[in-house]
Amino acid sequence: MAEREEVENKQVILNHCVRGSPKESDMEIRTARTKLKLPGGSSGAILVKNLYLSCEPYTYVTNGMSKMEGKIEGVNLESFNPGSPIVGYGVAEVLDSSHPNFKKGDLVWGITTWEEYSIITSTEGLFKIQHTDVPLSYYTGILGMPGMTAYAGFFEVCSPKKGERVFISAASGAVGQLVGQFAKLFGCYVVGSAGSKEKVDLLKNKLGFDEAFNYKEEADLNVALERYFPDGIDIYFENVGGKMLDAVLLNMTVHSRIAACGMISQYNLEHPEGIHNLLCLLTKRIRMEGFLVFDYYHLYPKFLEMIIPQIKEGKISYVEDIAEGLENGPSALIRLFSGRNIGKQLVAVTRG
Amino acid sequence: MAEREEVENKQVILNHCVRGSPKESDMEIRTARTKLKLPGGSSGAILVKNLYLSCEPYTYVTNGMSKMEGKIEGVNLESFNPGSPIVGYGVAEVLDSSHPNFKKGDLVWGITTWEEYSIITSTEGLFKIQHTDVPLSYYTGILGMPGMTAYAGFFEVCSPKKGERVFISAASGAVGQLVGQFAKLFGCYVVGSAGSKEKVDLLKNKLGFDEAFNYKEEADLNVALERYFPDGIDIYFENVGGKMLDAVLLNMTVHSRIAACGMISQYNLEHPEGIHNLLCLLTKRIRMEGFLVFDYYHLYPKFLEMIIPQIKEGKISYVEDIAEGLENGPSALIRLFSGRNIGKQLVAVTRG
Repeated sequence: MAEREEVENKQVILNHCVRGSPKESDMEIRTARTKLKLPGGSSGAILVKNLYLSCEPYTYVTNGMSKMEGKIEGVNLESFNPGSPIVGYGVAEVLDSSHPNFKKGDLVWGITTWEEYSIITSTEGLFKIQHTDVPLSYYTGILGMPGMTAYAGFFEVCSPKKGERVFISAASGAVGQLVGQFAKLFGCYVVGSAGSKEKVDLLKNKLGFDEAFNYKEEADLNVALERYFPDGIDIYFENVGGKMLDAVLLNMTVHSRIAACGMISQYNLEHPEGIHNLLCLLTKRIRMEGFLVFDYYHLYPKFLEMIIPQIKEGKISYVEDIAEGLENGPSALIRLFSGRNIGKQLVAVTRG
Repeated sequence: MAEREEVENKQVILNHCVRGSPKESDMEIRTARTKLKLPGGSSGAILVKNLYLSCEPYTYVTNGMSKMEGKIEGVNLESFNPGSPIVGYGVAEVLDSSHPNFKKGDLVWGITTWEEYSIITSTEGLFKIQHTDVPLSYYTGILGMPGMTAYAGFFEVCSPKKGERVFISAASGAVGQLVGQFAKLFGCYVVGSAGSKEKVDLLKNKLGFDEAFNYKEEADLNVALERYFPDGIDIYFENVGGKMLDAVLLNMTVHSRIAACGMISQYNLEHPEGIHNLLCLLTKRIRMEGFLVFDYYHLYPKFLEMIIPQIKEGKISYVEDIAEGLENGPSALIRLFSGRNIGKQLVAVTRG
């Protein structure tokens, strides 16, 4: 097929800025046409075929779909353009390049757009994939941003010590499932919360958590935490915010640490819930620290050195929830916010 | 006068556990009698004549007068005994000793009781005063717990850098006035909030703050902070909690720090106010850390080495609000919680 010929390019378009939780009707599937060759005279750009697209709160935030829109400071975000394909993380193959660092056939992960073929002009957000003897989809998860988030959050922000008691909310998610496994391998006692029996089973039976519970079945989160942490929580890996954070604060130990990675329960609220137990920070001398993975990418080579052997030796598992085809992208993104996904939610654009 | 003779011993008694803000009627002045000699056979104790007593939130908390009662974990607190003299920090002179480390005539500061003469059996809470060429009352403030709190909080918890923008609430208080001066000497831009025109004048004209404002006259704290920090706050030294904290969170910069030293606005509330802007911790990667001075007393010699010359050279001021006589102790303690004191509130038990 001549590269100058146009082909169909299926896209997921975000129609407008969404208030509250996103609905499928906020997005639409459109078919554009594109050439499989960069326009003449282009410089520093690459044309890619997208293989996997990642569904994550981040996708939601950067596309102006959330109350957090524009609020992540000090990070270069792609600006939100209604009527354009959603911007987000993905895994892609380079089809054409006018950038000296990329050539046809390279595999990359990083910021791309939700369509079959993307032209990426700002390549700073891309990492070249060196290890291809692992599932490529892993670069949307364990080997991509969520993996680095779990690694930096646990090892750099939580300052863990062997034997400490670790609690993780949204524990079966893209990041949580890894934090739990890192903590177990490190020698900690690990408990996770999740929103369904299936997820709780996953945590206990497949991911090796010491304990797990379904927060939706607990009348009193404080009581639930006291049950699993009679001597208190040394490290809390925070993914949800709101009522869970308030209950956790009551159960933290002296000199404990909270790594605030996400507060997914709050993103779509018109007014965030109030947190009432912050006085515990003082009486228990707790360090609570928000972090974003962008500040830690310099550690990515070190992270790969640790994680690739662990994957190959079967010491670490990674659970993915894969939607097949771009046309299932909108529902996959919405599943994430309703908590229906089991494990890392992603979209396989095309197989093979 | 024979040491075996009994003398009058005026005391401030806490009658019962207080709910809500304390009133004078919760305390009473009583006159007991005591010998100016330790009982025969006593070992490891000292008899002291109290010179100055410190009024501080800590006094309030440790005496079971607050909702925080029993909530400071990992710290040995004197237990609260209704009907006994209030327990708190003070400066005292040793009259008799059965402890090898203390002798008659020694001056000490640390945990004592609100009466003219105290028998102190647990002397771990005491520091011997070496420098007597400064006002002895300073050992309830700049040279005592508040001084160490300001020092540890600012230099150890806030991780300050020259040129950073520092905001301090309750800035004219025992701790705040020192944090501001430390920050100025360190090369920071410093703004404080306080609750009266007189305090604001003090901050700007005597204590060298760059700016100060009366929070009670601000309809919108967020607007006030934006006015003094158009480029955001790098360090917040938190003494009050509640609405101020919520407004500050909106104005913090990326990678900024909050040292939570106190939340005086919350201590007497049946239900603490909700904090709604914690998502900022995440988006701005803020580190928020509670601390208590007890964890930093090993730095006390280093602190004295810094501060004593600064006092003598007039580089640091310290504003005290001294109530004369034990009988004015209850009203002095209450002044602290109503914010009527100007500077460090203390009680001079006796002069000379």
